[in-house]
Amino acid sequence: LLSALTLARRAATLPGPLHPEAVDAISFDSGFASPGIFPDLTRAAERALTTYRREALQYCLPFGLAALREWIAAYMRDDGVDVDVEDVMIVNGAKNGLDLICRLFAEEGDAVVVTAPMYFTAIPILRSFGLSFIEIPQDREGLDVKQLELRLQQRERDGLPPPKFIYDVTDFHNPTGITMSLDRRQALLRLAGDRSIPIVEDSPYRKLRFEGEAVPSLKALDRNGMVFAVGTFSKLIAPGLRIGWIGADRSMLRRIAQLKSDGGTCPLTQRIVLEFFKDDGLTQQLVRARTAYAAHRDHMVAALRRELPDVAFSAPHGGYYLWLKLPDGIDSGVLAHRAFEMGVSVIPGDAFFASNEPGSARSKGVPKHHLRLAYSYSTEQEIDEGVNRLSKAYHSLLS
Amino acid sequence: LLSALTLARRAATLPGPLHPEAVDAISFDSGFASPGIFPDLTRAAERALTTYRREALQYCLPFGLAALREWIAAYMRDDGVDVDVEDVMIVNGAKNGLDLICRLFAEEGDAVVVTAPMYFTAIPILRSFGLSFIEIPQDREGLDVKQLELRLQQRERDGLPPPKFIYDVTDFHNPTGITMSLDRRQALLRLAGDRSIPIVEDSPYRKLRFEGEAVPSLKALDRNGMVFAVGTFSKLIAPGLRIGWIGADRSMLRRIAQLKSDGGTCPLTQRIVLEFFKDDGLTQQLVRARTAYAAHRDHMVAALRRELPDVAFSAPHGGYYLWLKLPDGIDSGVLAHRAFEMGVSVIPGDAFFASNEPGSARSKGVPKHHLRLAYSYSTEQEIDEGVNRLSKAYHSLLS
Repeated sequence: LLSALTLARRAATLPGPLHPEAVDAISFDSGFASPGIFPDLTRAAERALTTYRREALQYCLPFGLAALREWIAAYMRDDGVDVDVEDVMIVNGAKNGLDLICRLFAEEGDAVVVTAPMYFTAIPILRSFGLSFIEIPQDREGLDVKQLELRLQQRERDGLPPPKFIYDVTDFHNPTGITMSLDRRQALLRLAGDRSIPIVEDSPYRKLRFEGEAVPSLKALDRNGMVFAVGTFSKLIAPGLRIGWIGADRSMLRRIAQLKSDGGTCPLTQRIVLEFFKDDGLTQQLVRARTAYAAHRDHMVAALRRELPDVAFSAPHGGYYLWLKLPDGIDSGVLAHRAFEMGVSVIPGDAFFASNEPGSARSKGVPKHHLRLAYSYSTEQEIDEGVNRLSKAYHSLLS
Repeated sequence: LLSALTLARRAATLPGPLHPEAVDAISFDSGFASPGIFPDLTRAAERALTTYRREALQYCLPFGLAALREWIAAYMRDDGVDVDVEDVMIVNGAKNGLDLICRLFAEEGDAVVVTAPMYFTAIPILRSFGLSFIEIPQDREGLDVKQLELRLQQRERDGLPPPKFIYDVTDFHNPTGITMSLDRRQALLRLAGDRSIPIVEDSPYRKLRFEGEAVPSLKALDRNGMVFAVGTFSKLIAPGLRIGWIGADRSMLRRIAQLKSDGGTCPLTQRIVLEFFKDDGLTQQLVRARTAYAAHRDHMVAALRRELPDVAFSAPHGGYYLWLKLPDGIDSGVLAHRAFEMGVSVIPGDAFFASNEPGSARSKGVPKHHLRLAYSYSTEQEIDEGVNRLSKAYHSLLS
């Protein structure tokens, strides 16, 4: 006999994104980086492996290299967050950060607040802890805090405990591209603060803004020490580094450090990142990334408006993704399947809903008329060709 | 109210080894590598970051780089194991491998078989899954399989389910240095095979044999596909790489891949390892490591026999550790504390018993007369000075 947690763990399988170099199709699939903008890290690596060899090749303490934590603390302070080196912990990418926060807070049967739709790779991580989901929709300003308040009040009336935390991607949300407004952020912090509910602010795309002004992060606005800011170098430098961080109250991080039984995050890649920064590599890299991804976005937006005028979407001001709404009668799963046959991979929108469990009754209400398209990985030429193939697949379903 | 699993997780704190470069003491503490033998990885890194840049800086699939898996499969075949690339998965170090195997098998309340004493960093990992321990002593031939059989028979009579797996470090056991004999390995495989109990064979030190013949690994002797061989490059090349592997039946690995929601193991360090091997780096590195650690062992053995003749131990034929037995009346915790005050850090033996929970009644039977000394990290001069300080601490307790 298997417990509910074990069943949850067994069900906690990844939706299975396709590696773009492993399939013979144009990839608008998962958020792979554009290989064209990968920086030259050879000098950084050489210094890491000579000057810093003793540090880079030895075990590293759970908190990570102090110098990198200092750098991240300064980077966060530049972004309006009042943190110190003690409030930063290095982790093996943002997903490892979320896993560790779950280890700290989550008990089987607990609830967490998520957006509907949400970042799909977080779903199996949360499920693997036996968590249930309170799904809250978004509007143009982000997570609907009024609806969240009503749901929390209902839970109180029902005698249910408060959720263990609220999880959201506040900047250039994955998959919708929405950036939460300032008013909404303040309302969310008030609601969470009144009820002492921690917030996990996962923000990989924040610095990939192509136009407009940044909104202060939840972490910058937080006065209660309740926000866990999860960051990563995957979108700033390269995903292959597998280096992320948690910015949070130091007492919480000390507890997380005791749960981090992985032998420490790789000090070699930490040091490579640091040495890259010493050469002012990040400034140049951000320019390169923003320029490339803004052009990719423009290209995909233009191609979609040209070839698929019946498909609705809002062009995001940054990040990696377009979230398409298909006309009535077009099932996103059927379209994604047909599109893949025609040589372009896209992800049907139902994969981004936590309540989506293929084969389960709970999946019935999940919308079937969205597609997520990542414009990050493909070249402009591939974007043109891929949208053309998607359009052919779409029109083949109409006839 | 917290569940038993949550309480277990909260209690699952690391014993807190000290980073040797963070304390002002000679370190015979955890198994840090000797910095003097760290190889030059600069050429390997340069190739990884130029020729293989697209691969090294992109996300990697959960199984890891195919070329590295091929290499490891060949390495295991050279060691008598019948495996193919499909039977190898790359993980973030051996501890991550154990964590993933627990995710596959473990349910709260399950039991696992461990040695008493055992590798102490595995204790919090196993505890974090809510596992209980069936502790089996060792003799000179390794885990006492007769005692294990009696315990399993007793569990059957008590109506208890079999353990989920057997965990052991079969070569140069941590902390005892014992290598399991061939007869004992075959007896263990028969017992586990008859009852369909998987075995996790954690073998970081296998290639660090200073003298004598290697005994076939459990994985090489396995005819039932029940052994999970957990390997790591931490002891072969450098701990800072955080690259390990699981060699196991491919159907099991496919299930583990679905639980590996970490964004993949770092492809940059995987590629650096591979490029290092292309230059025949491992052959030279193993000679360097064996030479250095054999000399460290000889030095520590001689110093202990000279300065602490009342302390009993067997000199191991490989690995990193000496396991000391103190005379009656000397408490290892008191001695370790005094030794640290005198400038040498050692780990009291009770930390290596899974039933050791400071402050709990269950800890009462845990032996208090062992010390583990790692000879890996310190130089020969430091070994002399450290044993001298330990001897002073010891003699101060006698007076």
